[in-house]
Amino acid sequence: MRAVQVVGYHEKLQMTELPVPEPTGPFDVIVRIGGAGVCRTDLHILEGQWAEKSQVTLPYTIGHENAGWVHAVGSAVTTVAEGDKVIVHPLITCGFCRACRSGDDVHCEQNQFPGIDTHGGYAEYLRTSARSVVKIDDSLEPADVAALADAGLTAYHAVAKASRTLTPRDRVVVIGAGGLGHIGIQVLTALTPAEIVVVDRNPDAVALAETIGAHHGVVADGGQVEAVRDLTGGVGAEVVIDFVGEGGATAEGVAMLRQAGDYYVVGYGENIDVPTIDIVSAELNIVGNLVGSYNDLCDLMALAARGAVVLHTAKYALDDFQSAIDDLDAGRVRGRAILTP
Amino acid sequence: MRAVQVVGYHEKLQMTELPVPEPTGPFDVIVRIGGAGVCRTDLHILEGQWAEKSQVTLPYTIGHENAGWVHAVGSAVTTVAEGDKVIVHPLITCGFCRACRSGDDVHCEQNQFPGIDTHGGYAEYLRTSARSVVKIDDSLEPADVAALADAGLTAYHAVAKASRTLTPRDRVVVIGAGGLGHIGIQVLTALTPAEIVVVDRNPDAVALAETIGAHHGVVADGGQVEAVRDLTGGVGAEVVIDFVGEGGATAEGVAMLRQAGDYYVVGYGENIDVPTIDIVSAELNIVGNLVGSYNDLCDLMALAARGAVVLHTAKYALDDFQSAIDDLDAGRVRGRAILTP
Amino acid sequence: MRAVQVVGYHEKLQMTELPVPEPTGPFDVIVRIGGAGVCRTDLHILEGQWAEKSQVTLPYTIGHENAGWVHAVGSAVTTVAEGDKVIVHPLITCGFCRACRSGDDVHCEQNQFPGIDTHGGYAEYLRTSARSVVKIDDSLEPADVAALADAGLTAYHAVAKASRTLTPRDRVVVIGAGGLGHIGIQVLTALTPAEIVVVDRNPDAVALAETIGAHHGVVADGGQVEAVRDLTGGVGAEVVIDFVGEGGATAEGVAMLRQAGDYYVVGYGENIDVPTIDIVSAELNIVGNLVGSYNDLCDLMALAARGAVVLHTAKYALDDFQSAIDDLDAGRVRGRAILTP
Amino acid sequence: MRAVQVVGYHEKLQMTELPVPEPTGPFDVIVRIGGAGVCRTDLHILEGQWAEKSQVTLPYTIGHENAGWVHAVGSAVTTVAEGDKVIVHPLITCGFCRACRSGDDVHCEQNQFPGIDTHGGYAEYLRTSARSVVKIDDSLEPADVAALADAGLTAYHAVAKASRTLTPRDRVVVIGAGGLGHIGIQVLTALTPAEIVVVDRNPDAVALAETIGAHHGVVADGGQVEAVRDLTGGVGAEVVIDFVGEGGATAEGVAMLRQAGDYYVVGYGENIDVPTIDIVSAELNIVGNLVGSYNDLCDLMALAARGAVVLHTAKYALDDFQSAIDDLDAGRVRGRAILTP
Repeated sequence: MRAVQVVGYHEKLQMTELPVPEPTGPFDVIVRIGGAGVCRTDLHILEGQWAEKSQVTLPYTIGHENAGWVHAVGSAVTTVAEGDKVIVHPLITCGFCRACRSGDDVHCEQNQFPGIDTHGGYAEYLRTSARSVVKIDDSLEPADVAALADAGLTAYHAVAKASRTLTPRDRVVVIGAGGLGHIGIQVLTALTPAEIVVVDRNPDAVALAETIGAHHGVVADGGQVEAVRDLTGGVGAEVVIDFVGEGGATAEGVAMLRQAGDYYVVGYGENIDVPTIDIVSAELNIVGNLVGSYNDLCDLMALAARGAVVLHTAKYALDDFQSAIDDLDAGRVRGRAILTP
Repeated sequence: MRAVQVVGYHEKLQMTELPVPEPTGPFDVIVRIGGAGVCRTDLHILEGQWAEKSQVTLPYTIGHENAGWVHAVGSAVTTVAEGDKVIVHPLITCGFCRACRSGDDVHCEQNQFPGIDTHGGYAEYLRTSARSVVKIDDSLEPADVAALADAGLTAYHAVAKASRTLTPRDRVVVIGAGGLGHIGIQVLTALTPAEIVVVDRNPDAVALAETIGAHHGVVADGGQVEAVRDLTGGVGAEVVIDFVGEGGATAEGVAMLRQAGDYYVVGYGENIDVPTIDIVSAELNIVGNLVGSYNDLCDLMALAARGAVVLHTAKYALDDFQSAIDDLDAGRVRGRAILTP
Repeated sequence: MRAVQVVGYHEKLQMTELPVPEPTGPFDVIVRIGGAGVCRTDLHILEGQWAEKSQVTLPYTIGHENAGWVHAVGSAVTTVAEGDKVIVHPLITCGFCRACRSGDDVHCEQNQFPGIDTHGGYAEYLRTSARSVVKIDDSLEPADVAALADAGLTAYHAVAKASRTLTPRDRVVVIGAGGLGHIGIQVLTALTPAEIVVVDRNPDAVALAETIGAHHGVVADGGQVEAVRDLTGGVGAEVVIDFVGEGGATAEGVAMLRQAGDYYVVGYGENIDVPTIDIVSAELNIVGNLVGSYNDLCDLMALAARGAVVLHTAKYALDDFQSAIDDLDAGRVRGRAILTP
Repeated sequence: MRAVQVVGYHEKLQMTELPVPEPTGPFDVIVRIGGAGVCRTDLHILEGQWAEKSQVTLPYTIGHENAGWVHAVGSAVTTVAEGDKVIVHPLITCGFCRACRSGDDVHCEQNQFPGIDTHGGYAEYLRTSARSVVKIDDSLEPADVAALADAGLTAYHAVAKASRTLTPRDRVVVIGAGGLGHIGIQVLTALTPAEIVVVDRNPDAVALAETIGAHHGVVADGGQVEAVRDLTGGVGAEVVIDFVGEGGATAEGVAMLRQAGDYYVVGYGENIDVPTIDIVSAELNIVGNLVGSYNDLCDLMALAARGAVVLHTAKYALDDFQSAIDDLDAGRVRGRAILTP
C-alpha cells in the first residue's frame, strides 16, 4: 500500500510502498482509510518538536485523524466486522488500567498514539484496536468526519465538561473561532442553554460564528476584555473556553471571568502567569483539556449523525499530500484539509 | 465599650471607648464577643496592604474571626435570641443575589466584611446580621472556636471541595501544616478515605501532622517533589492542597500532581506560572479557594461539636492586644492567638 | 380591590371587595396582578382536598400562579421598586434555614404558599416577599408568563434535574404532552442534546409535540411500552419523565427504562408499586419532583425572554372567573386559562 | 480437581471431580481458590429460584464470592501473573460496551456471572477474566476477604453512592446490621462525616454496630420510625440505606426520610408501594443498588488493606460444604461462611 512517512526532521514527507498491515493481536483492527485529517501538529512533527516526547523511530507513517472502513479484525474482535464504516479514536488504550475503567481512557497508562508514536493514517490502511473504532451512521462519510476524530473531539470534550455547570443565565466566552472553536460553538448550542459570546481577531470568523449559534460576536481588536465585561453586565462570564492559548489570550481569558468563574484551556503556547491572590480572592478555576474519551467520540458522532455538528473540509488525494501540507502551512486551507486515498 | 482600632497605617492599634452598638436594621444582631482571633491579615492591614481594596475609613475596629453570645437582635430576627452562643461568619451577606440564593454566599454581590471594611471584633461587642451567626453546641466555648470562623472555615471549604472526588485509592498532599493545614488534615480525616501526605519545612509540624491523621509526612528540604512521587508509585497525587502559595510552593504543588490531578490554591503570595502545554497535556486543574460559606461553617461546627476538629489557641486579654500582635509578628504564637474581653 | 375567594368547600367561588394589601414586614412586596393562572389544583381546593393539609381559614383568596407589577415595597426592600414587571415564585420563603441557604428554597422550613394557605392572586393585588419576585424581560407580559410561575416551573425543575445526566446518545421519554409536558419538551430541547420521545393518548398532542422538539411521538394506545423499547434498540430509555402519574403511567414508565435508568415522577395520583428486586437488579432510580426553586424560575424566565419557551394561554377577565373555572373543569381550555384584572 | 455442583433443583449439592480449567481465551485467568463465600443466594439457587433467570445448564459448579491466587493466564494477559494474590469481581465483563467504558461494568451488556450462569468457585480452581481480578495487599489472605467480593462489594457500592451527598450535618440510617449492614457501617465511617443511626431487630447486632462506628442504635421493636424521627429533630434523615428490603422495611425506610431525602434499596423481597403524591410532595428519591463495579472493588480492597473494613468469617474445608450450607440455612453462621479448598 501507499503510505506517507516522516523520513527525517526538517525534511519533506515521502510517499513509500509498504505491506498492508495484518491483525496480529487478538483485538487488532485494520482500517482502510477513507479520510485522514492534516493537522498543524503534523507540521510540528516535521519540525522535530515531538521527537523527544514521542521517541518514535524514523521512518514512520504520519496522520492521527482517521476514518474509514474495517478491513480485517483480530481473532477476538466481535464488536466490528469487515466493511463497517468507522471513525478512529486517536489513542490505542489498554482497557485494564484505572483510567480506562473509569471512562477516562485518554489517561490510559499504556496508550499508543498512531501518527505520533507509531504508524498513522496518511496511508491506505491503518492498524488500530477494537477499543478505538466507533461505528458511524450510514448518513456520514469517513472523509467528511475524519477531522472530528481529533480536532472535533478536543472541542467536544472541553465543551461537554463546561456544559455541566452552564444554565440559561450563564454566559460562555469562546476565544478563537477557527477549526476547534467552530465545532465548539456548535456543540455549545447542542449541549447548553447558555448565552454564547465569541471572540476572534478575524471579523469573518466572528461573522460566521454568529450564523452557527453565537449570540454575540466580538472582534478582538484590543478592547475584547472590556467588550465581554460590557456584554456581561460588568461582572464577567461564568465560563471562558480558550481555543487559542497564546498571544496574550490566557491573561485576557482570565480577565473576562466573573467571580468563581471557570477558564478552560484548550489551545496552548504561552504560559499562564497569574497571581495566586487573584485566583484565591475571586475563587477562579483553571481547567486543562486534552482530547476527548472514546465515549466523547461516540457522543460527538451522535450529534454529527443528526447534523448538529458540521465541519468544512478541503479534500486532497493521498498522492497530493505535499499540496495539503503546503496549503496548511501557508494558511490557504478553509476548514480542515483531508487526504483521501 | 472597649474597642481596638486602626487609627493610621504603619501606626500601632489603639484601645478606645465606644458606645455599645445597637440593632438598627431589622436583621441586625449584636454579639458580645467571647473570643476574637488574631490573624496575619491583621498585620497586613496595619501595613496598609488592604487600604485601597477595602476603602475603609479610619479609625475603625479591627478583627474578623469572632465568636460570642447574642446580646441584642433587630426587629425581624427570629433565628437567634439573646444569650445564644454563636460563631460569626466573617461576611455580612444580602440573601437576595444569585450567589446567596445558591448556597455560595461568599460571592454575595453586596457583602460587608467586619474587621476589614467595617467595624470588627477586637472589642466587647460586634454588629453583624442574622444571616451570619451560627449557634454552636453547648460543649463549645466561643474563645476556643473563634479561629474556626475564618482560618478554620477556609481550610474546611477547600477540603470539602476536594473531598468530592477523593476515594480510598487516592492520595492527597497537604502543603503546609501550620494553622490552616492543621485543620485541613483533621477535616480530610473526617470527610475522606484518601491517603494523606503532609509536606512542611518544619519537622515538628510534620511530626504533629502524623498524630492527627496524616499517613505520611515529608520534611520539605528540597527533595519534597521527588518524595511525593515516590510515595505515589511514581505517578503523582490525585489532589494537592496548598496552604502556602509562596516560596516556590505553587510550582512544586503542580509538579506533585498526577495526570488529570487537581491543585487547590489556598495560601497565596507568588504567581502561578505554568506552561499551557503542561496544563493541557496532563489535563490538570488549578482550583482557587476562598473562605467557606455559611453552610460550610455549620458543617465545620458540627465536626467541632463531636471533637473531630480541635484547634490550639493562646489566649490574651483584650487589653493585652499589643502583646498578641507582637507575638504573632515575632512567630511566638503556637496555634492561634485569641483576644478575650 | 376585587378578590375571588373560597367561602366554603363544595361551594362556588365568590367575588368580594377587600382593602388593597399594604407592606407590613420589612421585606413585603405588593404586586398588582397582571395575570393569574387557573390551575387544576384550584378545582381540588374547592373540592376540599387541600383543607386538612393547608389548614387555611375561610374565606381566603385563591390563585397561586401570578405575575404583574410591583405596587409597593416594605422598608428594607432594595431589589425591586414600584413599577417593576415581575413574575411571582409560588412560595414565600424565610431565607435563613438550611434549605433556603442551599438554593433549595422550595424545602424552606417556614414557607407560606399564597393561594393555598394564605391570600393568593385571583385579585387585583397580592402580598408576597422580596424573596419571591423575579424581574422579567421587557419583552414579556405578565399575563403571558403567569402560568410559568407554577406549571412551567415544575416542568423546568424536573427537566433541569434530568439534564445533568443526558448526553447526545441518551433517550428521554416524556409521558404526557399536556400543559406541563408541553413546556417540558421545550426545556429539554433548550437544555439537552438527548433524543426526545413523547408519549400521549391524544394524537393531536403527540403531533404538536413533534413540532416543538420531540424527535419521536408515540400515541399511547396500549402498545406504548413496546413502542418505546423499539425506539431504543430494545433496551429502554435512560430517562423517563412522567407528567401523568396515574392511570397506569407509573408502571409503564418504569417498564420503559433501561438498566440504571431514572424515572422522574412529576404528575401524581396513583401509587408506585414495584418489586424491590426489579429496582435492585436493574439498579433503577425513582426521582420525585416538586415545583422549582427561585433560581429555577430565574433560569426559566431567561429561556422565556429569548423565546425558547412559549405557552398557549386563554385569557379571561377577572370578573369572568367562573367561566374560566367552568371551562377548565369541562376540558374546554387550550393551554392555560389566565385571569386578567 | 474437586468441585461442588448443582446437579438438580431441590437436590443436594454434590462433590465431583473435574479437570482443572485452562485458559482458552486471550484474557482468561485461572484462579486457584483460597476462599469461596457461602451466600444465601446459593440456597435460593438450590431452590430453583434462579433457574429461569440464569438459564444455566446443570450440572454446574456453584459459588460467586471468590478469592485466591492466579494459577494460569491467557496469551494476552499482562496485568497479573502466576502466583498473584487476587480477589475476583463477581462478573466477567466485555470491556467494550458503553457501560464497561463508563466505569459502570456491572451493567455490561454481555456479562457472565460465574457461580450463577457458569462455573463458580466452590472448587479448587475457577476460570475468570483479566478484567475481573484485583490484586490484593500482601497483608490480606484470600479466605479472609473472599466475602468482600460480593456481599462487601454490594454494601460498598451503596454507601459510596450515598456518600456523595453526606455532610457533617446529615444523618444516615442503616436498616439491618447483619453481614452487609456490618460492612456498610464501616464503609460509612471511612467515607463520610455523617451521623450514623443503625436499626435492627436484634439487640446484639445493634450493640455490635455501636462498636464499629454507629453513633446511635435503635432496636426495631415497632417504634423504630418514631425513634429515628426523634433522633433527627423530628424531621427525618437525609439518607436511609435499607439492607433488608422486606418485612415492612421499605415503608418504614421511606417514613424515616426528611424532605428531599434519599432511600437506598439494597436488600430486597417485598414491593415498594408508595403514593406518588408522597414522592412528589416531599421530593423523595428511591435509589436502586446492585453489586459494585471493578473500581468499587479496588476501592474496597484499599480500605481492607488498611484495616478499615473487617469481616467476621467462619471457615469450612471444601469437603465440608454441606455443613456450611446447613449452618447457613439454620442461622448458625456468625459473619460469613467461607469454603477453603
